[in-house]
Amino acid sequence: MVVLGSTGSIGVNSLEIAKRFNLEIEALSCNKNYKLLNEQISKFSPKFVCIGDKFLKDKVNHNKVFIGENGLLDMLKECQSSKVVNALVGFAGLKPSILVQKLGKTLCLANKESLVAGGKFLDSKKIKAIDSEHFGLKFLLKDSLKIKKMIITASGGAFRDTPLGELKNATPQMALKHPNWKMGSKITIDSATMTNKLFEIMEAYWLYGVKNLDAIIEKSSTIHALIDFIDGSTTAHISIADMKLAISHAIIDDLNEEIVSNFDLLNLKKMEFQKIDLEKFPIFSLKDEVVKNPDLGTIINAANEIYVKKFLNNECKFLDNKKIVFESLDKFGSTKITDIDDLFELDFKVKEFALHI
Amino acid sequence: MVVLGSTGSIGVNSLEIAKRFNLEIEALSCNKNYKLLNEQISKFSPKFVCIGDKFLKDKVNHNKVFIGENGLLDMLKECQSSKVVNALVGFAGLKPSILVQKLGKTLCLANKESLVAGGKFLDSKKIKAIDSEHFGLKFLLKDSLKIKKMIITASGGAFRDTPLGELKNATPQMALKHPNWKMGSKITIDSATMTNKLFEIMEAYWLYGVKNLDAIIEKSSTIHALIDFIDGSTTAHISIADMKLAISHAIIDDLNEEIVSNFDLLNLKKMEFQKIDLEKFPIFSLKDEVVKNPDLGTIINAANEIYVKKFLNNECKFLDNKKIVFESLDKFGSTKITDIDDLFELDFKVKEFALHI
Repeated sequence: MVVLGSTGSIGVNSLEIAKRFNLEIEALSCNKNYKLLNEQISKFSPKFVCIGDKFLKDKVNHNKVFIGENGLLDMLKECQSSKVVNALVGFAGLKPSILVQKLGKTLCLANKESLVAGGKFLDSKKIKAIDSEHFGLKFLLKDSLKIKKMIITASGGAFRDTPLGELKNATPQMALKHPNWKMGSKITIDSATMTNKLFEIMEAYWLYGVKNLDAIIEKSSTIHALIDFIDGSTTAHISIADMKLAISHAIIDDLNEEIVSNFDLLNLKKMEFQKIDLEKFPIFSLKDEVVKNPDLGTIINAANEIYVKKFLNNECKFLDNKKIVFESLDKFGSTKITDIDDLFELDFKVKEFALHI
Repeated sequence: MVVLGSTGSIGVNSLEIAKRFNLEIEALSCNKNYKLLNEQISKFSPKFVCIGDKFLKDKVNHNKVFIGENGLLDMLKECQSSKVVNALVGFAGLKPSILVQKLGKTLCLANKESLVAGGKFLDSKKIKAIDSEHFGLKFLLKDSLKIKKMIITASGGAFRDTPLGELKNATPQMALKHPNWKMGSKITIDSATMTNKLFEIMEAYWLYGVKNLDAIIEKSSTIHALIDFIDGSTTAHISIADMKLAISHAIIDDLNEEIVSNFDLLNLKKMEFQKIDLEKFPIFSLKDEVVKNPDLGTIINAANEIYVKKFLNNECKFLDNKKIVFESLDKFGSTKITDIDDLFELDFKVKEFALHI
């Protein structure tokens, strides 16, 4: 197996699962965290490794080190593994995703931006999704009954209980405090703005081909996903908030043993459900529009990546995501993407534009 | 189709579903409610009908009226239908259940006492269960993953919020006020004592062969059943509290259309879970014992039928069910049931004994 983004939380969990099930690790990649990468090298003896930052190459204890985005693609081409975990961050995950499928390997996908921005260039039916919501949906899917609607849940992110009035002064430090999940900074900011939930709606659309999709807030992150069936039945997937479960099902075939303990509802006492407040989280109002016109995903993703960078660098305010994303959509929203080159060009143009908003 | 107990709530709902799906009704039975039976006769033109009370025969507008328990069995033998809904009340449902299967017909079973008292004489794999919890479990069942535990929910019955101290003076009128479901008096009393939930545990054991079973209180009757799978996933079945859903799936093959609207979790706002209080509901403490020794079901059911009758007639106190059931178990608990005659004899003896407690 290959793990791209091996030093992030999904990567680390993936390696833990790989160890437990004696999966051989053929290749690892990370962006900058060479210290953890070196630990992983000594533990898993991968044939190849890749580091994003070329200036750190000499610090990596390996005789076959690839470098940067292109190095990553070259490394993938040399790999024999049938499975690749893509836990890269952001739009940078798309090219590797496309290549993984082109090489006939199974794509175990945690990089949701691959689908958000480039879903139409991936064979979504062959993807094993690593996202607790989408694993939940997969678990619930029954072919026997018609599906009316799919619903994913949201913990609500760092600001679920913060009044709108206080959001304008929200700092990166505040936004990085996710109530339930320990994750990388990009996705934690995306959770705080609910952009992550918009992305997951698109992910579900690409993965399961359903257009009637919604998200609701369930603060405890106990119910991850629900499916409304035609008859009036609804099923829900419940588990403790631990990504190992979704990862295991993505990378282990016919898994049939305990990965985490079952959630005891008696410990929860109660569960609450809330609508997503579109005044606080305006990006989520794009939900139905992006499912109707999935090309908008490329634009929203590009504008959002610039917003997250700016916000983390204190170069814009928390609520500026609305302006950056909506102005980008106004400018580029009518662009049609017909081939993959169009997509990369659009990503580039939107990012350049968004930088100057 | 045949509907036994057609004037009760399950029977009425079954006929509504039958009408919607143009199922022909071959036979109907009721105990005493000849007025409603006559309405059903004029609407569905059944070939045969049966009434429990022989003195009411002449009031039934039909030229082929069977009478009493034996008449019911005779009627079944004359029926050509492949499906029989058994919505009879109590132990009286067992003989018809056995006969239905013997005749090679599909048993759509709402009479849970058939399984509680006589599960070992039924081919439980062929039963279509009409019970929201067991329909929920069936909906959730996946053969692909090992099942760790099945959990059914309880609304909590009429006395879920009543302190133990107040239960000793509980009247039938109070016990008959079920918070969520409108049902017949026997099952409503069984809900108030949680005996109904013990019966459902046994029902699940017979239907699905799982021994690790439990019930928890979920007051809103929104989640009906949960399955804990080996990996750590739990699935839940959610629907509005309307028996039409479970009935439809029991009597309509390959159902794939809307029966009830889906439950909107946003309307619920919150869901609470509670342990079943064994001091208030001592009968439920028998849960693991009856699954280990299912023959006890016959005894508990017989003693409980006597208790319910006495309690409804103000001949005993609400909390006397403990004494009546446990003393019957003390006296008959070591009895082994090897053939069906043993079972009917044991039922008779326990009832005689319980009458004098």
